[in-house]
Order: sequence, then C-alpha cells, then structure tokens
Amino acid sequence: MADHIYKKIEIVGSSPNGFEEAVQNALARAKKTVRNMRWFEVTETRGHVEDGKVGDWQVTLKIGFTLEE
Amino acid sequence: MADHIYKKIEIVGSSPNGFEEAVQNALARAKKTVRNMRWFEVTETRGHVEDGKVGDWQVTLKIGFTLEE
Amino acid sequence: MADHIYKKIEIVGSSPNGFEEAVQNALARAKKTVRNMRWFEVTETRGHVEDGKVGDWQVTLKIGFTLEE
Amino acid sequence: MADHIYKKIEIVGSSPNGFEEAVQNALARAKKTVRNMRWFEVTETRGHVEDGKVGDWQVTLKIGFTLEE
Amino acid sequence: MADHIYKKIEIVGSSPNGFEEAVQNALARAKKTVRNMRWFEVTETRGHVEDGKVGDWQVTLKIGFTLEE
Amino acid sequence: MADHIYKKIEIVGSSPNGFEEAVQNALARAKKTVRNMRWFEVTETRGHVEDGKVGDWQVTLKIGFTLEE
Amino acid sequence: MADHIYKKIEIVGSSPNGFEEAVQNALARAKKTVRNMRWFEVTETRGHVEDGKVGDWQVTLKIGFTLEE
Amino acid sequence: MADHIYKKIEIVGSSPNGFEEAVQNALARAKKTVRNMRWFEVTETRGHVEDGKVGDWQVTLKIGFTLEE
Amino acid sequence: MADHIYKKIEIVGSSPNGFEEAVQNALARAKKTVRNMRWFEVTETRGHVEDGKVGDWQVTLKIGFTLEE
Amino acid sequence: MADHIYKKIEIVGSSPNGFEEAVQNALARAKKTVRNMRWFEVTETRGHVEDGKVGDWQVTLKIGFTLEE
Amino acid sequence: MADHIYKKIEIVGSSPNGFEEAVQNALARAKKTVRNMRWFEVTETRGHVEDGKVGDWQVTLKIGFTLEE
Amino acid sequence: MADHIYKKIEIVGSSPNGFEEAVQNALARAKKTVRNMRWFEVTETRGHVEDGKVGDWQVTLKIGFTLEE
Repeated sequence: MADHIYKKIEIVGSSPNGFEEAVQNALARAKKTVRNMRWFEVTETRGHVEDGKVGDWQVTLKIGFTLEE
Repeated sequence: MADHIYKKIEIVGSSPNGFEEAVQNALARAKKTVRNMRWFEVTETRGHVEDGKVGDWQVTLKIGFTLEE
Repeated sequence: MADHIYKKIEIVGSSPNGFEEAVQNALARAKKTVRNMRWFEVTETRGHVEDGKVGDWQVTLKIGFTLEE
Repeated sequence: MADHIYKKIEIVGSSPNGFEEAVQNALARAKKTVRNMRWFEVTETRGHVEDGKVGDWQVTLKIGFTLEE
Repeated sequence: MADHIYKKIEIVGSSPNGFEEAVQNALARAKKTVRNMRWFEVTETRGHVEDGKVGDWQVTLKIGFTLEE
Repeated sequence: MADHIYKKIEIVGSSPNGFEEAVQNALARAKKTVRNMRWFEVTETRGHVEDGKVGDWQVTLKIGFTLEE
Repeated sequence: MADHIYKKIEIVGSSPNGFEEAVQNALARAKKTVRNMRWFEVTETRGHVEDGKVGDWQVTLKIGFTLEE
Repeated sequence: MADHIYKKIEIVGSSPNGFEEAVQNALARAKKTVRNMRWFEVTETRGHVEDGKVGDWQVTLKIGFTLEE
Repeated sequence: MADHIYKKIEIVGSSPNGFEEAVQNALARAKKTVRNMRWFEVTETRGHVEDGKVGDWQVTLKIGFTLEE
Repeated sequence: MADHIYKKIEIVGSSPNGFEEAVQNALARAKKTVRNMRWFEVTETRGHVEDGKVGDWQVTLKIGFTLEE
Repeated sequence: MADHIYKKIEIVGSSPNGFEEAVQNALARAKKTVRNMRWFEVTETRGHVEDGKVGDWQVTLKIGFTLEE
Repeated sequence: MADHIYKKIEIVGSSPNGFEEAVQNALARAKKTVRNMRWFEVTETRGHVEDGKVGDWQVTLKIGFTLEE
C-alpha cells in the first residue's frame, strides 16, 4: 500500500434552499478544478437572513483530496 | 458608508421535523421583536430522543442585526 | 424527585441520503442495545465524496441516556 | 407539542461566600426581569483575590428561558 | 511496572443540593458497574432552573478506570 | 461590599479606519442604551476587503455592565 | 452499500518506551473486547516524569469501530 | 493612572474536602512567594477517585498579580 | 441570485510598524494572485521580539474570495 | 528587513511506520510543488486500525512557506 | 546547531492609548527581568470601559525566551 | 495525606532527531532548576522545515511539579 498524501482546502458553499444543497454546491464547484476528492468536514454553518427567513445557507467545508505522486 | 454596528443575540429554535425548520422557527420568533436581522451562525445542534427517534431538533443560533442610529 | 444519572456514548451514523437520516440511523442502531435514551448532541459532521458529490454523510453524536438505579 | 423557542442571556453572578451562591445570586437577579427561566450553563469561573484569599467568586452563566408566543 | 491501560466513560450526575454532590452521585452510580476507578475530569456544569433558583445541578464527568489485563 | 451582578452583551463594531476605532464605535453605540458598562472582551476580528485593501474592520466584543439592584 | 454505524470509545494507553508504543498498547488491549476497530484519533498526550525523564507516555485515543447489524 | 502590568501563573490546588477548599489551598500556598495577587481563573477541575468517592479535588487556576515597577 | 461559492486561504502578513499594517501587507500580497477577495478573519496575532520591543507583527488571516463560475 | 508574507497550506501525510515518518512524507510530497517551506504545525493525529494494530498513521500539518515578491 | 529550549511566560500589558502600546508595555516590563526574549503570542484582548470609552486596553501575551545552557 | 499543591510551567523543547527527544530535552533542561517534576502535557507540536525535511521538532509542554511546603 502506497503512503497516501492528501491536501485539504477550505470552501464555502451557499444555497437558498438548504444546508445539504450548500454542501453539494461547494463540492460541485470544487470538482471543476480538483481531482480525487475523498472526504469533507463541515467547520461552520451560517447564512444571511432576508425578511425574517433564511436568505441563503453558507456552509464552510474542508475538502480532502489525494495528491498524485 | 456609515459605520454599521450590530448586536448578536442567541436563540434556540426547535422543531420535530428537522434541522432547517428549527432554524426557520428561531428566526420567525425573533422577527416578532427584532428588526434588521442580517445573518445567523449555528453554534450548537442537539435534540430530544423519543422512542429511539429524534423527538425534536434544537438548534442554537447567534443572530446578528443592525442597531439603528 | 430522584437524582438522575445519565451516561453519554458517542456514535457515528451514516447515510447516503442526508444529514438528518444519518442522525436517525445512529439512534435506530443505538436503540437496539440502549434503553432510556433522552437527548443527543451533534459533535461532528463530515462525509465521503464520490464522483464530486456527497457519497455519504457521517454525523457523530453524543447520546445521553438514563442509568437505571 | 408546540415548537418551543428559547433565548439565552449571559449573566455574571458574584458572591464572597462560594461558587454556588454566585450562581444563585445570578439567577435571583435575572428573575426580576426574566420569566420562564429553564436552565443554566456555567461558562467561566473566576474571582478576585484579597489578602491571599478568595475575595469574591465570579461565575458566568448562560441562562435559557422560553420565549412566549 | 506494567503498562497500564485506562478507559474513560462520560457520566452526568445530578443533585438538587450542589455541585459537589452531583459529582459524588455520578461516582456512586458508576461504582455499581465499574471497578478500579482512578480519576475524574469535569467537562460541563449546568442545571435546571425552577422558580428562579437552581432546581438541580448537572455535572458531566469523564471517569478514568484501569482496564484489567 | 454588595454582590455585584453583571450582564454581558455581544456587539459588532465596524470602522474603515482601524481595529481600535471599531471597538470605540461599538462602545459609543452601546452607551446610548446601556448604563454602567465596565469591561469588554474582543472575541472576533474580521472585515471586508475592497479593492485589495481593508474596506472596514469588524470587531466583535462582549461588553459587561453592572445590573442595578 | 449498507449505512455503517460506528461507536467511539476513549482509551488511554501508556508505555515507558514512547508515544507510538503507548498507542499500540491501547489498541492491543482494546482488541481483547472490541471487534471491527477501524480508526483512532489522538486527543491528548501526556505522561509521568521520573527523575527528570519521561517515566511513561500516556496517550488518550478515541477508537472507532463498526457496530454490527 | 499608571499602566499596570500583570503576570499570570498556573497553580493546581488540591483538597479532600471540596472544590472551593482546593482553590483556597492554591491561593494560600501561592501567597507565600507571590505578592499583589489580584484575580484567579479556574481552567480545569478534576480529582482522584478512591473507593468510589472523590479522594481529592484538583483545581487548576491561573492567578494574576501586579508586577511592581 | 446565483449561489456563490468562496474559497478561503490562510496568509500570514508581517510588519515592523503595527498590527494593521501586517494585515494590509497580507492583503496587498494576496491581491497579486487572487481576484475577488471579499473578507478576512484574523486567526492568530504574534510577532518577534527584538531588544525588548516588538521586532515585527505577524498576523495570520483567512481570506475569503469568490470562485468564478 | 523586508516584510515577509507567508502562506499556510494543510497537508495530511501518512505512513505505516510511525508518526514522524508521516510528517516527513507530507513534507517530501509538498516539496515537489512548494518552494521556501519554513515551518509546520501538527493539527491532528489519527490513523487506520488493521487487525488490532496501527495500519497507518495520518498526521495533518499546516505548512508555512514564504511568498516571493 | 544546539537544541534550543525556550520557556513561555504569560504577561498582561495595559495602556490607555491602544492595543499595540499595551503589548509594548508588557514587553518593556518583562525585559527588566527576562533575557533573550524571542517571540510573543497574543492570547486575549480586553479592557476597562470608562464613561462609554475604552479606559484601558489589556492584552495578554505569552512571551517565549531562550533558556541558557 | 497532605493537600498537595503543584505549579505548571510551559517549556518548548527542540530536537533535530524527533518528537520524543524534543520532549526529553525540555525535561532535561527544566530539571536543572526545577525539583519534584511530576507530569507533563503536550500542548503544541511544530518545527522548522529545512530543505524539504524536518529541520527540528519543537514541542511545547506544560510541566507540573510539587510546590514544597
């Protein structure tokens, strides 16, 4: 088994529709430039309030991906 | 640009239906007495267990709102 | 009123479908061996990434239950 | 079951006599203006030193109370 | 000297009478099923409020005990 | 010596000119409605970036003030 | 893919010889009663001092293992 | 008003009789070599367990004292 | 409204002249390679001591910027 | 003295052989694409368990390096 | 290269004039009794409020210095 | 049993050879001026990078020792 090395980056996804969609949006955007994503860790959940309701969800993720040799 | 000043209050919303509804319920109640809410930050997620299932979700938020001059 | 004593255990639930289902799965499994569960506290939210999407949600809970006399 | 909403406030109680009395003093003062207090959480314990002894205990509490509809 | 191995468990003791009694109650209950308890660490102090006074103290402990060979 | 009781509130001050002015602005605004302010604690320092420079400083304070009898 | 559920327990391993051996000793002891261990997380590193040298290393681990259906 | 400078030291007091006596013991010992102690902050509360009861309380304090000119 | 996605990077700025200049230096350097910077968060403040005075201030920032579609 | 600016990145190194080799592996991989690395900070130590032993060590590092002018 | 050993002490500097002067005051006072100071880390920023303005800034530093052989 | 009182000091040990040697070096140096050292707690692990390898390990310890009567 090779000794895997990973890098973690920190991305904030947002969505007007919900917590999970904000996470999916962050991953979808990261996928455009990052290969081999393996896991994520939620580090912060917040959002804007508009008119007394959640305007958008903003979820900060650390995303880990394998660094190729 | 005026130098905005904000106050943060801490509210716990609850809901039997889910995490996001607990957040919305907290905001809906706060809206009755607080104007100019701008953002929220989730600081704690917990809940009651009833009969081996989530009885209700309890989500603690800090809510930031603009203090008027 | 008796002086209640509780124990907390730490369980990680997972689900491909969402954050809340991961919590429910953790409780459902714990229910098989633990009686008198009272509350839970979310301590960590993470998951696997598969093909640029959430492969599964992994939510760590502390679960509190009453210790019988 | 109604969806309860709570507010948390942060109060520092003090007492020359002990840790527990500082907590009770904080609650007694809060009771004058806050109804429906439900729980407290100790977040900080400190105090003044006078003449090499505890001059007073200062205990910071978060107090949670039900917001009426 | 043998290489000691310990396990930590997390117990919440409660008492209407005070912080220390809540700790003692937690240990007294744990003693029924756990042998060789060595130390405790207080990780959280909170309680219920009843009628503007402390209704009960709830103290969360980690308890360390020796695992027998 | 009376047993003093304090309340802490959380205010975010901002200023385009600097960290200290953001703190002073927070206190100046709080002074309009709060009497007997005694101390502050900085809990967060952040700000907007505009055109590659600090657009404004945003400093979150906890402010402690004496509750009158 | 089944929805895996894990439990985490907290074990303190010790060794006079080093940090890594303390971890291995914790796992070796846990293996006697726990099946399906998957991962560990180091949460605390400390030890006794004897005669100005490390007398033993004490490493606290959280160990995660799969709960069988 | 002179610009006061303080030093903080970290002391662990112990007592078989209770939490508060452990704090007082720490201060009494520190008083032998430290002048001008002003305040303390509790940073950790733990203790030994003997025969299923608290054998002694061990309370870690930071103690602040004025440095003379 | 589009669902904005942000990335956070961590930069340490330094300056012999002060805290704020260290922050400005970090942003000025980041601006050379990063577009659309929106906010910063101070996560650590430290520095070198030279001859009993601050030799330089070192301030660690997280900088958030919009990821283009 | 120039005002140095640094960037921090987060890398996870792994090794079946030990904690220190995991750190060295992380640095060796980072060296392929990063110049002027100055320091590292360990932020997390964990690993896989295989057959009741450490399968591999996984150590998360923040690595600081000088940004060239 | 010798294996350097450092000690860290914790000092609170104060100043009516600003955050940076409070840090400089702490270092100036420490310099009277401590040689070979190398770095500082800000761990807490607070202060007194007088008449709705900052009465003094109180900044807690850890100061690291080389222990001579 | 006497009521033991301990003091904790914070020392940074370094070594080019490894994590454990850095800890041993810190204790060896402390032993020159401190009697009755009882335990240590690792609070930070970091180091310099030289030429893409660990140049030295720097480990921060809190060391507890008994204060004599």
